[in-house]
Amino acid sequence: MPERCGKDTLILSNSPVIVGYAAVGGKKEGEGPLGKQLDAVFEDTHLGMDTWEQAESALQKEALTRALDKTGVAKSQLQYLFAGDLLNQNIASTFGLRDMDVPLLGQFGACSTMGQTLALAAIFVDSGAADLCGAVTSSHFCTAERQFRFPLEYGGQRTPTSQWTATASGAVVVGRSGKGVCVREVCVGRVQDLGVTDMNNMGSAMAPAAADTLCRFFQDTGTKPADYDLIATGDLGLVGSRLNRELLAQKGYTLEENYTDCGLLLFDRDTQDVHAGGSGCGCSAAVLCAHFLPLMEQGKLRSVLFAPTGALMSPTSSQQGESIPGICHVLHLVRCP
Amino acid sequence: MPERCGKDTLILSNSPVIVGYAAVGGKKEGEGPLGKQLDAVFEDTHLGMDTWEQAESALQKEALTRALDKTGVAKSQLQYLFAGDLLNQNIASTFGLRDMDVPLLGQFGACSTMGQTLALAAIFVDSGAADLCGAVTSSHFCTAERQFRFPLEYGGQRTPTSQWTATASGAVVVGRSGKGVCVREVCVGRVQDLGVTDMNNMGSAMAPAAADTLCRFFQDTGTKPADYDLIATGDLGLVGSRLNRELLAQKGYTLEENYTDCGLLLFDRDTQDVHAGGSGCGCSAAVLCAHFLPLMEQGKLRSVLFAPTGALMSPTSSQQGESIPGICHVLHLVRCP
Repeated sequence: MPERCGKDTLILSNSPVIVGYAAVGGKKEGEGPLGKQLDAVFEDTHLGMDTWEQAESALQKEALTRALDKTGVAKSQLQYLFAGDLLNQNIASTFGLRDMDVPLLGQFGACSTMGQTLALAAIFVDSGAADLCGAVTSSHFCTAERQFRFPLEYGGQRTPTSQWTATASGAVVVGRSGKGVCVREVCVGRVQDLGVTDMNNMGSAMAPAAADTLCRFFQDTGTKPADYDLIATGDLGLVGSRLNRELLAQKGYTLEENYTDCGLLLFDRDTQDVHAGGSGCGCSAAVLCAHFLPLMEQGKLRSVLFAPTGALMSPTSSQQGESIPGICHVLHLVRCP
Repeated sequence: MPERCGKDTLILSNSPVIVGYAAVGGKKEGEGPLGKQLDAVFEDTHLGMDTWEQAESALQKEALTRALDKTGVAKSQLQYLFAGDLLNQNIASTFGLRDMDVPLLGQFGACSTMGQTLALAAIFVDSGAADLCGAVTSSHFCTAERQFRFPLEYGGQRTPTSQWTATASGAVVVGRSGKGVCVREVCVGRVQDLGVTDMNNMGSAMAPAAADTLCRFFQDTGTKPADYDLIATGDLGLVGSRLNRELLAQKGYTLEENYTDCGLLLFDRDTQDVHAGGSGCGCSAAVLCAHFLPLMEQGKLRSVLFAPTGALMSPTSSQQGESIPGICHVLHLVRCP
């Protein structure tokens, strides 16, 4: 069962295991550095659907179905699904998973949602509330642009600090036993808001949350950044990850070469015109499921801090002059022997 | 720790206790049958804020602050907040609870969110993941109308099956021990969609989910409707609650006089022009915290099934021709001796 460690961290003493996972992406993601590691790449980012929102739902269904198929788990064996996305009223998740016939708990943590869903799935399994849970998230460039910024047809210029919302979904199945990667500790984040109001600079808005939750995790566990093979924030991009380094240094923690950001891994910034990097719920989800988890299973990484970040605003809150609150959840993933 | 019972139900064997609660509402809610039972009524539904969205955030902050104050629990003692609302990207919760400085897990279950947040808070406490958790939801007539239907200024006619979104918030604090009302069992719902597409008939869209989860709960626990002092769905209103009765009867469960719906309790349908009844996350939350929990503490009710219902659509999904999926979570609340 979960045991509290310090102020905000939970140790999952039964070490729930990631028994299956899959990641799918769109054309641009397929052309990126991790393209060959995705379980499926859809050249048609409509996925044959009539609308982009339906396409995003299809991404979630694909990712979860593939994760189940790879694991040999039937959907009827899942006891809970934790799922969320960036769309108004979580419709990518609801409509994508509507036919799964699994008890559903919709989650909203903006781009931190992969961390939130995986944390809850792991806590449920660790506590005995479930034997098998699924965690799923997605984002889609075309649904996000028209919802949060401008209609694509408008052809608006993007600022240098802006990021590119990934068209991708990642799904994880968490179980009680088995070989693979365990979720060892979980640190749920607190909202941080330093007053950033620029909707085209999400990395800076989220960086204080990343620094805060990572710092709390290090304090709670008595560890330091060098104790981990890899520390990966979710989608701070170039601007936000630099700021995260600075903020953590001010708190006495130096991030070295073992620090990266999923938003810097999914795309090639030099050739793919994504400006400050990738973003969206699907960004950290796809990098986790297509890149980190396979590397851990291959023994190339043993101990990883996965720290997805989210910007908890809406166009309405920004239009009303509000700043952009950020959140970050930290999960310590360990390769089980 | 939680123990599985049947296919979908969890028994919370440590019986986590509702140690504190509060409900606040707007002018119309204050004029309704439960008006005097609310902890605070705001005649100015702007709550002194510039926008309705900010007012809804203020409602959540008020409800949680009052629940904490009544309990003598400091916000720094809360280990997790589970919160959600109907607004795009959950902004009522994020901005309302931003200053609480408590680890936040945003939830989305549409109008079922009070059930979802309370279920998660109770499971976390039962499992040892936390000692004290908060569960909060809200809705606001003016934010919901302009987001889901029409600008208020348009003065659109409302159909007979339409419901009135409550301007209200309810907050619950769940702890490990103490006297009061316990959460004994939890049954998380599965999405049900019988193809209803009328955004002005949410009760009918959600009724199949209520019937499904209640039926699963009765089967899992080997109980029947007559075993409970009260069974209350969230916001099916007059139309949906009649349909729920019919659907459950088809499944072999007859709802008698002990069945009601929060949407039929919060307002007086004869005099308050709410058509089929109340709705919104704040409806079931306020009725729980202003009415059911006090009655249980007074010994007038001992064993209650609280079954909030949600319609998991967005204006975008409806504009794209989608039907309205429903969900319902069932919690068995028992007065501890």
